[in-house]
Amino acid sequence: MLDVTLLGCGGMMPLPNRFLTSLLARFNGMSVLIDCGEATQIALRKSGLSPNPIGVMCITHFHADHISGLPGMLLTMGNAERTEPLMMIGPKGLTKVVNSLRIIAPELPFEIICVEIEGNEQTFEFDGMYIDAFKVNHNVLCYGYSIRIPRQGKFDVEAAMKLPIDRRYWGVLQSGEKVTVDGVTYTPDMVMGPERCGIKVTYTTDTRPVDSIYKYAEDADLFICEGMYGEEDKAGKAVARKHMTFTEAAQIAAKTHPKRMWLTHYSPSLVHPKPYMDEVRRIFPDAEAGKDGKNIDINFPED
Amino acid sequence: MLDVTLLGCGGMMPLPNRFLTSLLARFNGMSVLIDCGEATQIALRKSGLSPNPIGVMCITHFHADHISGLPGMLLTMGNAERTEPLMMIGPKGLTKVVNSLRIIAPELPFEIICVEIEGNEQTFEFDGMYIDAFKVNHNVLCYGYSIRIPRQGKFDVEAAMKLPIDRRYWGVLQSGEKVTVDGVTYTPDMVMGPERCGIKVTYTTDTRPVDSIYKYAEDADLFICEGMYGEEDKAGKAVARKHMTFTEAAQIAAKTHPKRMWLTHYSPSLVHPKPYMDEVRRIFPDAEAGKDGKNIDINFPED
Repeated sequence: MLDVTLLGCGGMMPLPNRFLTSLLARFNGMSVLIDCGEATQIALRKSGLSPNPIGVMCITHFHADHISGLPGMLLTMGNAERTEPLMMIGPKGLTKVVNSLRIIAPELPFEIICVEIEGNEQTFEFDGMYIDAFKVNHNVLCYGYSIRIPRQGKFDVEAAMKLPIDRRYWGVLQSGEKVTVDGVTYTPDMVMGPERCGIKVTYTTDTRPVDSIYKYAEDADLFICEGMYGEEDKAGKAVARKHMTFTEAAQIAAKTHPKRMWLTHYSPSLVHPKPYMDEVRRIFPDAEAGKDGKNIDINFPED
Repeated sequence: MLDVTLLGCGGMMPLPNRFLTSLLARFNGMSVLIDCGEATQIALRKSGLSPNPIGVMCITHFHADHISGLPGMLLTMGNAERTEPLMMIGPKGLTKVVNSLRIIAPELPFEIICVEIEGNEQTFEFDGMYIDAFKVNHNVLCYGYSIRIPRQGKFDVEAAMKLPIDRRYWGVLQSGEKVTVDGVTYTPDMVMGPERCGIKVTYTTDTRPVDSIYKYAEDADLFICEGMYGEEDKAGKAVARKHMTFTEAAQIAAKTHPKRMWLTHYSPSLVHPKPYMDEVRRIFPDAEAGKDGKNIDINFPED
């Protein structure tokens, strides 16, 4: 199960009733945070969550509303006596930005490992969870992220029984390891069915619609996409500032068929997203307006 | 009139219901902000205030809970198309810290003028408002601030009538300028009574009790002082971490005779200050527990 919480849904600046957009995804005791704008640590706490299980922090880009909460978050982690290293993934320049912000958080009881994304797309693996970073199109280098939990095939008992090896090796094969018995090597594919449908959540903000989003959002369980402007007359502003309107986001969803889409990263000028949602759902029926603390548990589909 | 708002009253980290300690003081259309921790811009907005009248920002020290909100605040000022320069006052190293944090706020439509405090105390003047910075005793270089509005003496009509000059020069003398008539120079002190009692607000956090606080808090209209710990058994922790207990703050007030004292900068572990206030008021009766948004208008005393 992947437990996903949209901690905030605001763009540009935090407001009294709208935190900046960031996402927390929890799987198997490890949390991934995407973006950490000012007050994200408050949003986290307000959602009843804790910063220290965050093993990986992904940054989309270096505009302040996506990373200004970093020094405070690091200190709060440190004050809770964290010693586990924190991995940070982000665009080229991440190390410099993190070090520069750490002028006010110089001493921490844990290590920060900065990984700068190479090229247009890169995949990282963490104990059964995969994170795909993909370049999008903003006015600075910016990436979207997919979090994927693949699911192996079913164990094929009949196939296993046909192998001339003891049952005690079945578990080894099922866990993905080879087994050599009497000089013969047996591989997991001999007993495992084809890979089953896993879980995928795709998150992208601060971008125009681009091919990479279509590629990575395809068939996602949840597609979280920026909708900076609800008003159609702001379509020109969206182009100029390299953001998206609600309907542009919906059009991506209509073509990539996620199970559901949440809009986020609203302009501070957009007080209520609701008036624009009928038009959004006309384009993509399974769209919802994101809001602070919006949460979903995504399970593997039943076979 | 000086309009004073305690934007937040938390120390170390912002909480869902407690912003980090900072102060906004407004006088004659100009605002002074003391400290700008993470989410101070939200606290400001929640108090119905705006960032752009802030002409001067004073930083006590460079621990993140006192300055981590700077990049976001600067961008919000810039997004509101500010062009007026912002003066920042703080300890030695201010320019480096501000520039380092600006890695995520590099382009602003206004200038930032950084003034690093020289020595143990320094006074700055802004159109009739004085800001005294005074060194306190924390584990890094840290200053407290007094905001003072002096008030000139009463105009002495009888004295003015005795001068052999036309009434039209009275206003010039009253505004503090000299006047030369028929080769004779007349100075303001010839028509003005002795300086009257003005307004003083003194603010200090992140310090042990030290002489400079006794000096600057003396007879203040409002003394805002850190009270990190309410529990008496945390007195040792207060010494070790160079903070104060509620009663230590009250003891300063009892000796410096401010009209009132507000406590602030509570530890995140201190959920409610109230249980400790009886003891505080036993030491200094005009003490109040600060809370987010606590506001007072301070007028010149009636003559």
